[in-house]
Amino acid sequence: MRKFPFGLAGRLSFLLLLLVTFTTQAQKKDGITRIDPTFWWVGMKNPNLQLLVYGPNAGTYDYSLSHPGVTLVKTNKVENPNYAFIDVTIAPTAKAGSFTLTGKKGGKTIKRTYELKARTAEPKAQGLNGSDFIYLVLPDRFSNGDPKNDKFKEMADPNADRNNPFLRHGGDIQGIQNHLDYFQEFGVTALWLNPVIENNQPLTDEGGTKRSAYHGYAFTDHYNVDRRLGGNEAYKKLAQAAHARGMKIVQDAVYNHVGINHWFIKDLPSKDWVHQFPSYTNTSHKFQPIIDPNGSKADWDIMLNGWFTPFMPDLNHDNKLVENYLIQHAIWTVEHFGVDAWRIDTYMYNEDQFMNRCNQALLDEYPNIHIFGESWVNNVIAQARFTRNNINFPFKSNQPGTLDFVLFNAINDALNQNFGWDEGVSKVHQVLAQDAVYEDPMKLVTFLDNHDMNRYFSVIGEDLNKYKMGMTWLLTTRGIPSLYYGTEILMKNFKDPSDAEVRKDFPGGFAGDKENKFLASGRSERENDAFNFVKTLANYRKNTPTLHSGKLMQFVPQDGIYVYFRYNQDKTVMVATNTTNKEVDLKTERFAERTAGFTKAQNVITNQPVSGLASIKIPAKTALVLELQK
Amino acid sequence: MRKFPFGLAGRLSFLLLLLVTFTTQAQKKDGITRIDPTFWWVGMKNPNLQLLVYGPNAGTYDYSLSHPGVTLVKTNKVENPNYAFIDVTIAPTAKAGSFTLTGKKGGKTIKRTYELKARTAEPKAQGLNGSDFIYLVLPDRFSNGDPKNDKFKEMADPNADRNNPFLRHGGDIQGIQNHLDYFQEFGVTALWLNPVIENNQPLTDEGGTKRSAYHGYAFTDHYNVDRRLGGNEAYKKLAQAAHARGMKIVQDAVYNHVGINHWFIKDLPSKDWVHQFPSYTNTSHKFQPIIDPNGSKADWDIMLNGWFTPFMPDLNHDNKLVENYLIQHAIWTVEHFGVDAWRIDTYMYNEDQFMNRCNQALLDEYPNIHIFGESWVNNVIAQARFTRNNINFPFKSNQPGTLDFVLFNAINDALNQNFGWDEGVSKVHQVLAQDAVYEDPMKLVTFLDNHDMNRYFSVIGEDLNKYKMGMTWLLTTRGIPSLYYGTEILMKNFKDPSDAEVRKDFPGGFAGDKENKFLASGRSERENDAFNFVKTLANYRKNTPTLHSGKLMQFVPQDGIYVYFRYNQDKTVMVATNTTNKEVDLKTERFAERTAGFTKAQNVITNQPVSGLASIKIPAKTALVLELQK
Repeated sequence: MRKFPFGLAGRLSFLLLLLVTFTTQAQKKDGITRIDPTFWWVGMKNPNLQLLVYGPNAGTYDYSLSHPGVTLVKTNKVENPNYAFIDVTIAPTAKAGSFTLTGKKGGKTIKRTYELKARTAEPKAQGLNGSDFIYLVLPDRFSNGDPKNDKFKEMADPNADRNNPFLRHGGDIQGIQNHLDYFQEFGVTALWLNPVIENNQPLTDEGGTKRSAYHGYAFTDHYNVDRRLGGNEAYKKLAQAAHARGMKIVQDAVYNHVGINHWFIKDLPSKDWVHQFPSYTNTSHKFQPIIDPNGSKADWDIMLNGWFTPFMPDLNHDNKLVENYLIQHAIWTVEHFGVDAWRIDTYMYNEDQFMNRCNQALLDEYPNIHIFGESWVNNVIAQARFTRNNINFPFKSNQPGTLDFVLFNAINDALNQNFGWDEGVSKVHQVLAQDAVYEDPMKLVTFLDNHDMNRYFSVIGEDLNKYKMGMTWLLTTRGIPSLYYGTEILMKNFKDPSDAEVRKDFPGGFAGDKENKFLASGRSERENDAFNFVKTLANYRKNTPTLHSGKLMQFVPQDGIYVYFRYNQDKTVMVATNTTNKEVDLKTERFAERTAGFTKAQNVITNQPVSGLASIKIPAKTALVLELQK
Repeated sequence: MRKFPFGLAGRLSFLLLLLVTFTTQAQKKDGITRIDPTFWWVGMKNPNLQLLVYGPNAGTYDYSLSHPGVTLVKTNKVENPNYAFIDVTIAPTAKAGSFTLTGKKGGKTIKRTYELKARTAEPKAQGLNGSDFIYLVLPDRFSNGDPKNDKFKEMADPNADRNNPFLRHGGDIQGIQNHLDYFQEFGVTALWLNPVIENNQPLTDEGGTKRSAYHGYAFTDHYNVDRRLGGNEAYKKLAQAAHARGMKIVQDAVYNHVGINHWFIKDLPSKDWVHQFPSYTNTSHKFQPIIDPNGSKADWDIMLNGWFTPFMPDLNHDNKLVENYLIQHAIWTVEHFGVDAWRIDTYMYNEDQFMNRCNQALLDEYPNIHIFGESWVNNVIAQARFTRNNINFPFKSNQPGTLDFVLFNAINDALNQNFGWDEGVSKVHQVLAQDAVYEDPMKLVTFLDNHDMNRYFSVIGEDLNKYKMGMTWLLTTRGIPSLYYGTEILMKNFKDPSDAEVRKDFPGGFAGDKENKFLASGRSERENDAFNFVKTLANYRKNTPTLHSGKLMQFVPQDGIYVYFRYNQDKTVMVATNTTNKEVDLKTERFAERTAGFTKAQNVITNQPVSGLASIKIPAKTALVLELQK
């Protein structure tokens, strides 16, 4: 989720209509129109399930059900008569099958069938670790695999137009699945899709520009993958196809907010389902009050409870029914689609204890799942605060990982600043030198750019040497690397206020594209140079456990030269970067701790031998990756 | 101690002679020429004492002594025959008095008298806290109280010349004592003198410039205050005079290194008394390897064991005799002179466990003493690492405080950058928002500049409005504020490589000075404006316990406006800074947490009432200090 919608917030001066009117839908016939979760399973570790039962006056009925092993514990009522929240328990002995939920009121009866499925042995929640290389794809902008699902007249936004950067372009999950060979060719092991859940939002008018919710962060129905992306079936098929190849799926989850067109926002269960203010109140986007022992409650409140945009109401996580709804949706998603890891949008905007309970629920059910949130911060203390850390904060996060925004900033500085005492590549060294505060820095997800920021290749001035240096650090230092789609083929651009410039279509992903950059023949020489560099290094990484879990040892940068090692009992890989504009002949004596016992090396990129280690020639602006040999 | 002697280190290309030759001084008559500590006390909590006994062949004798309650436990020998290290214990029952230490070898006898004093009830080790305001004085450059002690022909550096910025100028401790009224006038409660211990160093040739060790960081005899500053007597007298006024004395301590002319360096007890390398090796000044779990031993070693300059050998703290010597000197200093707090130079350059043992020894003997080191770092994690913190580092520092270099940097940025999301005064907010990592951030010593850096008034472009804003933050935010001499009268300048430009004489401190800025009549209108500002605010602080120990609550800066409060049950002080160039009318609704119950205020600087609190006018570039009233 992009962080600083200054332009947007600034331009919005209208007061949002408050969403607090409930009307008994007397005009409609009483009934149950939906139950969330839409189905569930027997045999889950957690026996508890809370069914959101929705329909005209559904909250005014008394419920019962009959299924062996399933017990209706309690029906919770809320302000809005159209909702009942029914607590049930499912005993370990319960068998898969359907039962009827029956509501009675006076002489009236309403019913709906509910299914408890058997769990499958299909791969799920396999987690991520240092052996993975994540590829982040914006589904609408990657490839159109099914032109029939580009737009639907009956949806709130019935548009699709590739010529308009602010509208949907028709990319979909099938388009992604069509390119699994492509991803694997350059070493990708995991696909992270920007959210695929239905965003049945109308176009929004942002300063005169009509804009669609193609980014996916404005959910309107948690239990439907967007039809325009292929729906639940396409998503499940993608996960199965990926798993069949040993690849993994990362779900982009959003707990903080939903779209203003979400079905439950249009008929709020209770006033306190979302955070409401006397007049429209945007989040401050200022995370400091969360970690600040000197902070104010007012600042904390506006950060967490203010809305992300006027089109995305902020859910109230203090409401236990909201919490249950979101946690169950998370479990349902992992179980049903078989996703392997959980990326959490706008992590810091969620209430702490709530986040811990969400994480714990997933970890209890799926001990191997990886969870990593988006905490867009500018210092290590703040970043550590939102993952498992070694700091005795009053609140202790249980999140296994986090996106490493601090290292991202440091890599940018390393590539764009002249070397200095605290500048240039010294920044990378200094950030990694603070790793002691993380419980496990190897679980951080590293990156060079993403869908919310200027593209990497533009940030570094379209300098291919810099590109390779930064890419080398990404693929060889500690952490789980991720890459934003198109970076491997030098897609570029700076952010415009709407982000459209950094979310362009992947060339070749759409019918009629003049270029097809999925193929070497469609790429320019420069693009192939970049692609092949990533391909070579990522595949080396994939096959080199030392780069997955080996220790990191870094040396203080000197004169623009930054040297580090990844090592374990099997192998030692030396990464020696010359960030200066002149070739250097690097004396290696000071690295004896890690080079002792080795006499030569193999250059991983060129596949050429390096005959001696006493001194190593490093060309200008080059990161050598050397596998040391005895 | 200045941190980056690049210029110096770069210009030195000679190899230093290694100090490893010992010769039995057969030409001199055997004897004991000194015992360190030069005397000791009965009734100390720690009963152990290790006497360094020095003299021709003093290490070749067997020792005995006879004094009730005093037991000679063991005599430790070292490589150099001129040293014996004698462990004694002093029972609680031991009486003050002198005894004779007798050494015997064959038929030869050598002797020396040693005194055990009675402890006095004079104030000592009173510590520092938020009620204090420290003034840092460079004794050679402040005021010449005794022209007779400016120079001594028999000393290694016999020069004094006020016209030469690199030589001694003749300032002394008497000169400082002469101005106790002055310090108290503007609210100072504690004097921190740059080191007063003898620096009997020759002039050093640094790139063609002859330079004296007037800074004081190159000790040549731990047990003598430099004669040119007035010797031990003057220092003790100053402490007594200060204590009589309720003021405190802060000792500037150096464990890391000594001067190359130190008496024990000229006749090293053992090769491992100092760190030695095959050729001259400077410290890297790179602290990261100390805190870095990914760091190398080699980088750690060069940081800690490399020499600070070729003229300052690096003591080996792994040598237990060195450790004992330094710890005992610290205890001796506090006990003898009655110093109240202990500022530790180059804190990070010392071995961790050694530093903890030094600190603990002082705290065991003097539970109230404050200890704060110089850790010149650029991030809060590193700063926290060198004081008591809430991070589970593998090593836990026991240092009660530290100089707050990170806040210093932030204040500079706040005054020199335009306001932005992460720039300008946002920096101050963001640094204080990380306070959770300190065990007690109130114990950090805050500052605007010091003897090693560009002077504050120059850094902020000689802008008196900025001066007052930064001074207000210093004197009202959390921590123990300190001020570098002359900042109160707008002394200015940027550092030259030798630092001389920022260590100029205080005008009026020396005979023949044309101006006397100790007096209002000698100061310009602008200087009086600055002086009176500091005077007003520091005296308000002195008399306002809320600013000593009250909680801090800060609010997220908006549009260049930064508001925080210090508060306790008695009072609430609001500090509202407008860093912009335009007057603002600040709505205070968002500060209701702290303003509730108050209806008006008193402006602490102008002493004018503020009639209402709903909105407050803040002139451009102004920090209001408002004591809220019901």
